[in-house]
Amino acid sequence: MRAVDLIRKKRDSGEHTREEIDFLISGYTRGEIPDYQISAWLMAAWLRGLNRFEIAALTESMLYSGEVLNLADLPGRKVDKHSTGGVGDKTSLILAPIVAAGGLTVPMISGRGLGHTGGTLDKLEAIPSFNVNLTLEEFRRVLKECGMGLIGQTAEIAPADKKIYALRDVTATIENAGLICASIMSKKLAEGIDALVLDVKTGCGAFMKREEDAVRLAEVMVETGKRMGKKTVALITDMDQPLGRTAGHAIEIAECIEVLSGRGPGDLRELSIELSAWMFYLGERTKSVDEGRQLAGTMIASGQAKEKFKQGIRLQGGDDRVINEPQRLPAARSHAEVPSPMKGYIAATNCEQFGIALAILGGGREKKEDTIDHAVGLEFRKRIGDRVEKGEPLATIHYNSDGKLAEAKSLIAESYLIGESAPSGERPLIRRILGA
Amino acid sequence: MRAVDLIRKKRDSGEHTREEIDFLISGYTRGEIPDYQISAWLMAAWLRGLNRFEIAALTESMLYSGEVLNLADLPGRKVDKHSTGGVGDKTSLILAPIVAAGGLTVPMISGRGLGHTGGTLDKLEAIPSFNVNLTLEEFRRVLKECGMGLIGQTAEIAPADKKIYALRDVTATIENAGLICASIMSKKLAEGIDALVLDVKTGCGAFMKREEDAVRLAEVMVETGKRMGKKTVALITDMDQPLGRTAGHAIEIAECIEVLSGRGPGDLRELSIELSAWMFYLGERTKSVDEGRQLAGTMIASGQAKEKFKQGIRLQGGDDRVINEPQRLPAARSHAEVPSPMKGYIAATNCEQFGIALAILGGGREKKEDTIDHAVGLEFRKRIGDRVEKGEPLATIHYNSDGKLAEAKSLIAESYLIGESAPSGERPLIRRILGA
Repeated sequence: MRAVDLIRKKRDSGEHTREEIDFLISGYTRGEIPDYQISAWLMAAWLRGLNRFEIAALTESMLYSGEVLNLADLPGRKVDKHSTGGVGDKTSLILAPIVAAGGLTVPMISGRGLGHTGGTLDKLEAIPSFNVNLTLEEFRRVLKECGMGLIGQTAEIAPADKKIYALRDVTATIENAGLICASIMSKKLAEGIDALVLDVKTGCGAFMKREEDAVRLAEVMVETGKRMGKKTVALITDMDQPLGRTAGHAIEIAECIEVLSGRGPGDLRELSIELSAWMFYLGERTKSVDEGRQLAGTMIASGQAKEKFKQGIRLQGGDDRVINEPQRLPAARSHAEVPSPMKGYIAATNCEQFGIALAILGGGREKKEDTIDHAVGLEFRKRIGDRVEKGEPLATIHYNSDGKLAEAKSLIAESYLIGESAPSGERPLIRRILGA
Repeated sequence: MRAVDLIRKKRDSGEHTREEIDFLISGYTRGEIPDYQISAWLMAAWLRGLNRFEIAALTESMLYSGEVLNLADLPGRKVDKHSTGGVGDKTSLILAPIVAAGGLTVPMISGRGLGHTGGTLDKLEAIPSFNVNLTLEEFRRVLKECGMGLIGQTAEIAPADKKIYALRDVTATIENAGLICASIMSKKLAEGIDALVLDVKTGCGAFMKREEDAVRLAEVMVETGKRMGKKTVALITDMDQPLGRTAGHAIEIAECIEVLSGRGPGDLRELSIELSAWMFYLGERTKSVDEGRQLAGTMIASGQAKEKFKQGIRLQGGDDRVINEPQRLPAARSHAEVPSPMKGYIAATNCEQFGIALAILGGGREKKEDTIDHAVGLEFRKRIGDRVEKGEPLATIHYNSDGKLAEAKSLIAESYLIGESAPSGERPLIRRILGA
């Protein structure tokens, strides 16, 4: 078998066998096939597409390029959630404590933010001395002790994905359902889970702007998960505006603590409970999703979820006093309001721009090497459908450097579309559920 | 400007500006843009296509990545011919002496064979001690003295093409009209020529199997040549069967000497004269193509062309005694006939297979590093339309190693399609002329 022939095959819309996919992926991981051949193949796959069989083979090949955790010695079912990412998307930090408090194990291997989206690991690092770089042995001990663990991709987990993702990033081959599916699922399946709930975002703040693209991605991920013997469902959820009222790092941690305290914004609370409910149901902790919702509610109301988060922070070396004293989180030096240029109703937001504004303020990265300012953030004061007066604040900017404020401010102001009357129609937070 | 954004642009069917093309090509040539980004871009360009403006920009960018010969101090017009390659295609070695004998300068920078096609440089190296690796200064001296020179691509000529071609070869991005055009034309225009005749092969032994693909390639090359101020025509010629009666290296040199001696097969003689006639006409040596045909015929009949070939060989260090004593060319140890399995008429040939059979015998290369056996070759005894008896030889194999004979033999036997009656219809050698 020769790489060039397989590139040609995909270029000409051919369908790969499992052996061909294995040849490419294992050859690349071992350094026997060079970057320039894989990047040509990735572009051919991007443009010609991968069928479901090829996606499953690619996922498995990437999964078995590294270690697969065996958590069989831990009691109970292991479940996880994965989100395709958006602005203000912080449910992991709420549902992991809820579900662990409810008796399941949540072994979460998460990623960092890139471009306009935030990353769970970056948010956790806003908690003073929180350590996301556990070894797999340390991770296992934390999981055993408290039922939840939140770490980054280690060298042992799906090394093929790590190498391929870095290449996709610089060759414009990111946004493809098959390649995204294989990247996500190879890492998630390496966690040794029994069930997986997928939160596939759609809308102007998501990678998949069009619902049909989100559905297609959700379908291939659900199918791939099931093919690998995991219970898998996908929720297609709204990302036409930020989730919750904040975007940033410390500011999002504080918002999560609010929700775990029984307060916080309705949309964030609703989605966190819904995702937790599915995790309880797929993890066979409850007999129905509805029972799962009740259990999630109980875990919040009783304070058990918040207590679990505190324990989790402590076990990963973080300062757990932030739970009751959020002022211990890093705070920005200055605040500035973004006033509405006119009166009317918020008709839409250009949600992606909020993420870009946050990155400009230092709260995001353009390149992997960039460092993040955990203190800066955005507070969203108006949501779609809200009435606003001229001069009334649309958002509040938490910033540290004056230099970038004007740029961020105008970007945010431009991102609110204000109309004369309230927008009509429903805006369901959860648009569809697949695989149930 | 960032390479990844340009890759994305082409992936999404965008059209590049001249500055964008220059950024990619000069950045790659200088080593600032890595292989893996250019290979992804090449695949995107292969699949999405390049428009005529982009092809012209690509050609110029590759041309000016290196030196452009200035032959203004040499008397008369400078003309060249380029063929897209096929099996038994040896016209360069016949028309260069004809046209140089006729008073024009032919500065030919040629390539090596790859896959099923032969290369002019490889054929020349069948002549004992012939040196194709002249410096540009030596090349200029040879051209001044005898009006023809035949060398390989030097480091100074279109270095971008050299680097990009090597990458295309291993990333399945060869067969694309725009990329082929830029590769060919950047090298040919670097020769400092006034006019160029293109021989674009089509048929089962050519890279462009379908006539419409050959026409499309011819069109973009003619347009690119004219845009750069060069007189350019393209002849679309038949490659559904080998050109002439031989394929190999020494054996093709001998056949060229036959044609230059006024003998040799009719098709090879016809095409060589036709291409020479167009070179005379575009080089303003004759007032019409027909006058060019007459001049070419005279150059052969008078022995001047053959004498010119002899001079050219001598000036490039070769043993010029081969002209009158072709037995001095390397000869294979053994001959074997390929008998016809049945009686009938040759209806078609799978011409590409002949080239592959030759490569199997050692007379071709699969990888650039492979060495070539100049002595092995094929003699074609039957052409399309010929009657054949059962057991009558279809071809004769000149070989050195018994090991590969059986494989080559059956490949050749399978490549003749024999029917019960003579095939109907005309088989014009020259199918179309573009740009005239």
